[in-house]
Amino acid sequence: MTPRRGRRLGGGDTRSEVLTAARAIFAEVGYSATTLRAIALRAHVDPALILHHFGSKEALFREAMRVPIDPAAIAAIITGGDRGALGERLCTYFLGLWEDEATKEPLLAMLRSALTHDAAAESVRGFVTEALVGRVAIVLDAPDAALRATLVGSQFVGLAMARYLLRIEPLASADAATVAAWVAPTVQRYLTA
Amino acid sequence: MTPRRGRRLGGGDTRSEVLTAARAIFAEVGYSATTLRAIALRAHVDPALILHHFGSKEALFREAMRVPIDPAAIAAIITGGDRGALGERLCTYFLGLWEDEATKEPLLAMLRSALTHDAAAESVRGFVTEALVGRVAIVLDAPDAALRATLVGSQFVGLAMARYLLRIEPLASADAATVAAWVAPTVQRYLTA
Repeated sequence: MTPRRGRRLGGGDTRSEVLTAARAIFAEVGYSATTLRAIALRAHVDPALILHHFGSKEALFREAMRVPIDPAAIAAIITGGDRGALGERLCTYFLGLWEDEATKEPLLAMLRSALTHDAAAESVRGFVTEALVGRVAIVLDAPDAALRATLVGSQFVGLAMARYLLRIEPLASADAATVAAWVAPTVQRYLTA
Repeated sequence: MTPRRGRRLGGGDTRSEVLTAARAIFAEVGYSATTLRAIALRAHVDPALILHHFGSKEALFREAMRVPIDPAAIAAIITGGDRGALGERLCTYFLGLWEDEATKEPLLAMLRSALTHDAAAESVRGFVTEALVGRVAIVLDAPDAALRATLVGSQFVGLAMARYLLRIEPLASADAATVAAWVAPTVQRYLTA
């Protein structure tokens, strides 16, 4: 199969073909080993057009897998504003994603599939390690930056599990501001202590 | 079907019939709604014998579902020893369960099934809420004891997910003592701050 060079991505069908090809290849080989070239080949389009329309492998992954977590937004939260309120700002961002039904549903789906399908777990692991931990480690000016980032991740994923997925009371019904007030110092300490 | 009163639990077959009946009923109606009477009826034994041989619904659940987390041990950790080293002791207990292959495997299975089967989630939720959070809240002499207990649970379940299930690096390969040193102050603050 030869890529049809010059084919445009404007049409809804072509765009959805790229997303379908991306989902298939991410699931087959994981995030790290997936290349835009392989996706382009599968979808019969030019790799340069995929890059042009989606911006990056990370962005394509997020759109194909409907991942509402934005590593660039998290990096901006870390570098922008008062460093002493870092934990609070990250908690607000994270709880906001889970409190909004539109972003909660794909997050739940991602969590469930990562826990039951090895291929999906490999994709999520690759995305989290490269796009999320990697990005945070770069902007976080601290020793053990990558370990700190994963510790924050562990608190956030556990909070998601206990509050939104398993719905353990009284954590599940506590208001978001109360939860943020409890968790923010944990995040702050992991990142800056 | 009439329970065969007086039938003994000593035989391996009868014991395994009780465990099979318990697993079925916990899965059907969840932890909270399960009664020893219903299990006895299903297994054709006397309820008093189940109580005598397993000790409690909690203990029967733990044995039937191979749950290595022991609420009584956790309560003892909280009430015994230096209160200032509570977080450290609980981290040591928790990491010990996950670092030991014999207890790690059933914990992983429980986590996976709770995330994919609603009935299993209901059972885990009931056990965690009644047996674990309930027990900790009683021995923990603090305001918002139940919320504090669930916050600790959220950090522990997230650590298990990130380190042992998703294996996100560098958290997955960090040595247990390093992880405990990072997480213990979080647990300590949730319980005693």
